[in-house]
Amino acid sequence: MLHFESDYMAGAHPEVLQRLIDTNLQQTVGYGADPYTARAKALIREACGAPEAQVHFLVGGTQTNATVIDGLLARHEGVLAAESGHISVHESGAIEATGHKVLTLPQYEGKVRAEDVAHYIDEFYRDDTYEHMVAPGMLYISFPTEYGTLYSLEELKALSEVCHTREIPLYIDGARLGYALGAEECDVTLGDLARLADVFYIGGTKVGALFGEAVVVTNPKLLPHFFPLIKQHGALLAKGRLLGVQFEALFSNGLYEQIGRKATSLALRLREGFERLGYSAVVNSPTNQQFFRLPNRVIDALMPHAGFEYWGPRGATESTVRFVTSWNTTDQDITDLLSLLENA
Amino acid sequence: MLHFESDYMAGAHPEVLQRLIDTNLQQTVGYGADPYTARAKALIREACGAPEAQVHFLVGGTQTNATVIDGLLARHEGVLAAESGHISVHESGAIEATGHKVLTLPQYEGKVRAEDVAHYIDEFYRDDTYEHMVAPGMLYISFPTEYGTLYSLEELKALSEVCHTREIPLYIDGARLGYALGAEECDVTLGDLARLADVFYIGGTKVGALFGEAVVVTNPKLLPHFFPLIKQHGALLAKGRLLGVQFEALFSNGLYEQIGRKATSLALRLREGFERLGYSAVVNSPTNQQFFRLPNRVIDALMPHAGFEYWGPRGATESTVRFVTSWNTTDQDITDLLSLLENA
Amino acid sequence: MLHFESDYMAGAHPEVLQRLIDTNLQQTVGYGADPYTARAKALIREACGAPEAQVHFLVGGTQTNATVIDGLLARHEGVLAAESGHISVHESGAIEATGHKVLTLPQYEGKVRAEDVAHYIDEFYRDDTYEHMVAPGMLYISFPTEYGTLYSLEELKALSEVCHTREIPLYIDGARLGYALGAEECDVTLGDLARLADVFYIGGTKVGALFGEAVVVTNPKLLPHFFPLIKQHGALLAKGRLLGVQFEALFSNGLYEQIGRKATSLALRLREGFERLGYSAVVNSPTNQQFFRLPNRVIDALMPHAGFEYWGPRGATESTVRFVTSWNTTDQDITDLLSLLENA
Amino acid sequence: MLHFESDYMAGAHPEVLQRLIDTNLQQTVGYGADPYTARAKALIREACGAPEAQVHFLVGGTQTNATVIDGLLARHEGVLAAESGHISVHESGAIEATGHKVLTLPQYEGKVRAEDVAHYIDEFYRDDTYEHMVAPGMLYISFPTEYGTLYSLEELKALSEVCHTREIPLYIDGARLGYALGAEECDVTLGDLARLADVFYIGGTKVGALFGEAVVVTNPKLLPHFFPLIKQHGALLAKGRLLGVQFEALFSNGLYEQIGRKATSLALRLREGFERLGYSAVVNSPTNQQFFRLPNRVIDALMPHAGFEYWGPRGATESTVRFVTSWNTTDQDITDLLSLLENA
Repeated sequence: MLHFESDYMAGAHPEVLQRLIDTNLQQTVGYGADPYTARAKALIREACGAPEAQVHFLVGGTQTNATVIDGLLARHEGVLAAESGHISVHESGAIEATGHKVLTLPQYEGKVRAEDVAHYIDEFYRDDTYEHMVAPGMLYISFPTEYGTLYSLEELKALSEVCHTREIPLYIDGARLGYALGAEECDVTLGDLARLADVFYIGGTKVGALFGEAVVVTNPKLLPHFFPLIKQHGALLAKGRLLGVQFEALFSNGLYEQIGRKATSLALRLREGFERLGYSAVVNSPTNQQFFRLPNRVIDALMPHAGFEYWGPRGATESTVRFVTSWNTTDQDITDLLSLLENA
Repeated sequence: MLHFESDYMAGAHPEVLQRLIDTNLQQTVGYGADPYTARAKALIREACGAPEAQVHFLVGGTQTNATVIDGLLARHEGVLAAESGHISVHESGAIEATGHKVLTLPQYEGKVRAEDVAHYIDEFYRDDTYEHMVAPGMLYISFPTEYGTLYSLEELKALSEVCHTREIPLYIDGARLGYALGAEECDVTLGDLARLADVFYIGGTKVGALFGEAVVVTNPKLLPHFFPLIKQHGALLAKGRLLGVQFEALFSNGLYEQIGRKATSLALRLREGFERLGYSAVVNSPTNQQFFRLPNRVIDALMPHAGFEYWGPRGATESTVRFVTSWNTTDQDITDLLSLLENA
Repeated sequence: MLHFESDYMAGAHPEVLQRLIDTNLQQTVGYGADPYTARAKALIREACGAPEAQVHFLVGGTQTNATVIDGLLARHEGVLAAESGHISVHESGAIEATGHKVLTLPQYEGKVRAEDVAHYIDEFYRDDTYEHMVAPGMLYISFPTEYGTLYSLEELKALSEVCHTREIPLYIDGARLGYALGAEECDVTLGDLARLADVFYIGGTKVGALFGEAVVVTNPKLLPHFFPLIKQHGALLAKGRLLGVQFEALFSNGLYEQIGRKATSLALRLREGFERLGYSAVVNSPTNQQFFRLPNRVIDALMPHAGFEYWGPRGATESTVRFVTSWNTTDQDITDLLSLLENA
Repeated sequence: MLHFESDYMAGAHPEVLQRLIDTNLQQTVGYGADPYTARAKALIREACGAPEAQVHFLVGGTQTNATVIDGLLARHEGVLAAESGHISVHESGAIEATGHKVLTLPQYEGKVRAEDVAHYIDEFYRDDTYEHMVAPGMLYISFPTEYGTLYSLEELKALSEVCHTREIPLYIDGARLGYALGAEECDVTLGDLARLADVFYIGGTKVGALFGEAVVVTNPKLLPHFFPLIKQHGALLAKGRLLGVQFEALFSNGLYEQIGRKATSLALRLREGFERLGYSAVVNSPTNQQFFRLPNRVIDALMPHAGFEYWGPRGATESTVRFVTSWNTTDQDITDLLSLLENA
């Protein structure tokens, strides 16, 4: 059975797991005050070229988004996000549960446009009754987006500028960040993110860790009491060093980049194979998620041998499906999948 | 260096870790829909003699408490708890962050008394203005308590009866449950907990797992939509099978009980050693946490060689301290500690 | 100066004020336990033909919506509403502040369609990941809508049926309910609302009272602890009898209907006047709010003599504006306005 | 029947009501942007000697407390208050509903002591685990307290200094402020409150208005977006001028002080009468609430002729009761009550 359902189906990358094994019986203090966590933070600061940044490790994506957004917003504010943004759709109302509205913007293959952000904010304050409405208090974007697409450096700069001239912070959800940085066409670096965003997170769960997300706060005055907020949100891991150990492994010897590069190059090979066989991608994704419109007949022929997901409801004769690669996809997996497709 | 600071300083029990290693490269669906999680649930139901119970796995204790309590309470209700209860003191306001007041009861070595619960509820409804106050909507207790003490079966039955005659659910925080069940003087079984509580959780983080808590809902109609609540609280692990794998290991071959028995017997040896040397325990704890009043001189002599914690502020000439054993404490550790104490 | 800005610009209808004056020095218990409130509740139950309904009086619309919706929803649920619904747009995030998402539906002159509600709910549960999304837990509609439009009895029946077959409650915001019931083309009665909705409120603030909204709960098991919720939401008036006195006046001698009839008939006269002069209404509103597209030149000529509001931003050469009548608009006001318009 | 149950049993002081009558048919914009509200704000600023203060009008006390406290606190913070404080006991969890814990301090006849506040904060930050606990983020006191007692100017200065040296704001709940300012032994002025508190409110509901509380923010940078918060809390009155009109009346011709002086002098006469007859006050209250321990026999003899309330549960042979005077208590009421007592 081949597996392209998602990038969180296996455990940890072997190098990450090995570090957990090596350190398992050591005894360190809890809640992230251990030396592994300290070293992981230093490595991330260095990788981001951001010596002043604060780095915090949380367990999962939804809790990270809820904790950061709750920390950044004042009570009367909401968060701007694409209507397809993960926080808008797939977090069971975690943002609203903290008391804040998600203010939606149009999405273009999962991306928001700087001019739409500017327009939203400018129109908001032009309305005489704006104090009766939820003020746009920050911008949330995901990189890559939920559709696997990427912002160019130019686009990110424009978003950052729109946010900063209008005095709201920019927060970037990097659940799959490794698969952006590893994409051939990506012209954005960790250093760019650190410079352009106020807060962003480097996803571990989907990029080689058992679990874990590294929040990088490059504008620490915006989150002055983040530690108790992490605890209050139930997002503080008792054995905090497990996060430190894993991120130390991911940020040593270029492992994080290497994982991203491999998975995206396999995703491109997959896409080229599909297109060669006449199935074009429905989204222009340069990362590890690829979307195709396939005849139901083909889907039904593949399904017994390869796992992948419907993207939206099954159609009458054809449907959109998603294939995802990850750090543990192999060249052979792609070869086998394409061979299945050819014979479907 | 000896370590008695807490029971969450090392990684996982070797048998638990080995299962994570063995299964690391397998690919399973996320969010707990995998076969490991299913088997772990079945093992726990069996161990509890509760075939109808629902079992859910969350990552940590604070998030478990917040999610369960938020799920059990109506909006106008609060949760009764000992004033020393973990939710009252050490969770950064996680319960209040969900909108609910913690209503405190007197504590006796960390325990609450059935008559105090009854009195609180009865007086509440006797007050003409009760609808202007927060209604007691459930009872939270910890077993063992934050002081390492245990409720007897008789005491638990009385609490359960008080709750059920007054129609509020009983929830038991079992962060260190293994060290209760393993205590020689404990006359309570998992089956008793399942019968007497409406919801309780079996702690993994402090009892041999890397992380993880198993929530057992023996009265499932009280938590009809718990899954989306787990997600909303940011408590849903993407690679959910990691929890299943670990609890499957803990509940196979009697590992959970064995961990508890060993750590509590070492704690009793530690206590007898202290008492033999003239330092009596300040709390009558039969579990893995032991509290002593020691001269500061003795504390200062021990500290360079053995880790342990102050319990409250340091006094002028003597202070209260806590020593904790766990699954990875050894006989030799106790021997060495007592030898240090003898020469202090 | 003529006033058509809104229906909450003057104090109370003289008959309502007179009752407040007459009772001012009487002493009664607080929080709505007085005989005026009891009589007002009885009059409302009778007017609704709903002897079993519970009636509660709150002070204003936003607090009423937040309290009712917070009371009706479980924690994992959100409220369905038109994207133009008051709770979606103009309540400063009051619903989200209670932890609940507003799930928006398309609007047609402010109304939602039963088929859209059905489609939303059915598609929701067809999605395999629905437990990661906010469950539609109730439907909110306003009657009249924010655009002054009305649901026909047929449409309300269809909405009610869709809600009840899918087991979610229907809640109707009647901030301007008097202006619906008074409209000539309205085929819906208070009795219909009581039969078709689970909860609705009868607006007083905009229909002759100084302030106050009467919540009618025809399905009381859905809101079993509403009183403490009202208090918790800060919506409980200490001198609760002020609400009772006003609603007793409004529901005596047909005053509520009479206010509605007069204001809507004046609104229709206003509209016919505008149309006769060549300015057609942009919304087909049969109630006390009328919307027109006027040349900016005409707007600028009217503004010094008549108050009214822009509806949306001012356009380059013409703009949409709103004129509102109320219980204290007179025939002469309409005559004067039309004469101004004719000479503009 | 005599009435001493509370100070919110009648309508408005006749001068206040007259102003509402006089202005009833005028048409003004809503939400407090009218000239009455502007004048009332100016009068209050002047009375407080605080030309830079911001003044906001809300409807009731619980909503005022919840809105102000929610606005002042960061998410990880709680509010310090006496364990007898109104927000601790009698607001149905309104503070917790906004996500914040009420951190209780010992009370001495309803008052907190500066040294207890200092001790709480200092011990908090001395605890190594303080980031796992709720940070004390502000101090709430009531003036007069729930027991009718008053802080002296010296005591208020000490509280203010403790707060400001520890960098938390001081908020004063003045639900019955008029009855403090009118008390003979009160050495605190509105100007003192404005100088010593960061935010306080001047109660109208219990001091002559139909309803309404005036929030005075002397440190406006602490509440930069208070208007949308008021709306979000459902505390924004549509016909906002009703608040302006009433407070304009209360702060014209010394009415507010006059109401307070009269009610407290009658309360003292009541108390002297009770004491003369051998019933001493159980609290040393110089304001309009007086508490006595009476034989049940006396209580039962009075009750058919005079309304008053039990304070706590009825005892076996004697009970504590409360008598409250207000702006509409008369000299004759006191004479009649004392005569009843004499003959009881």
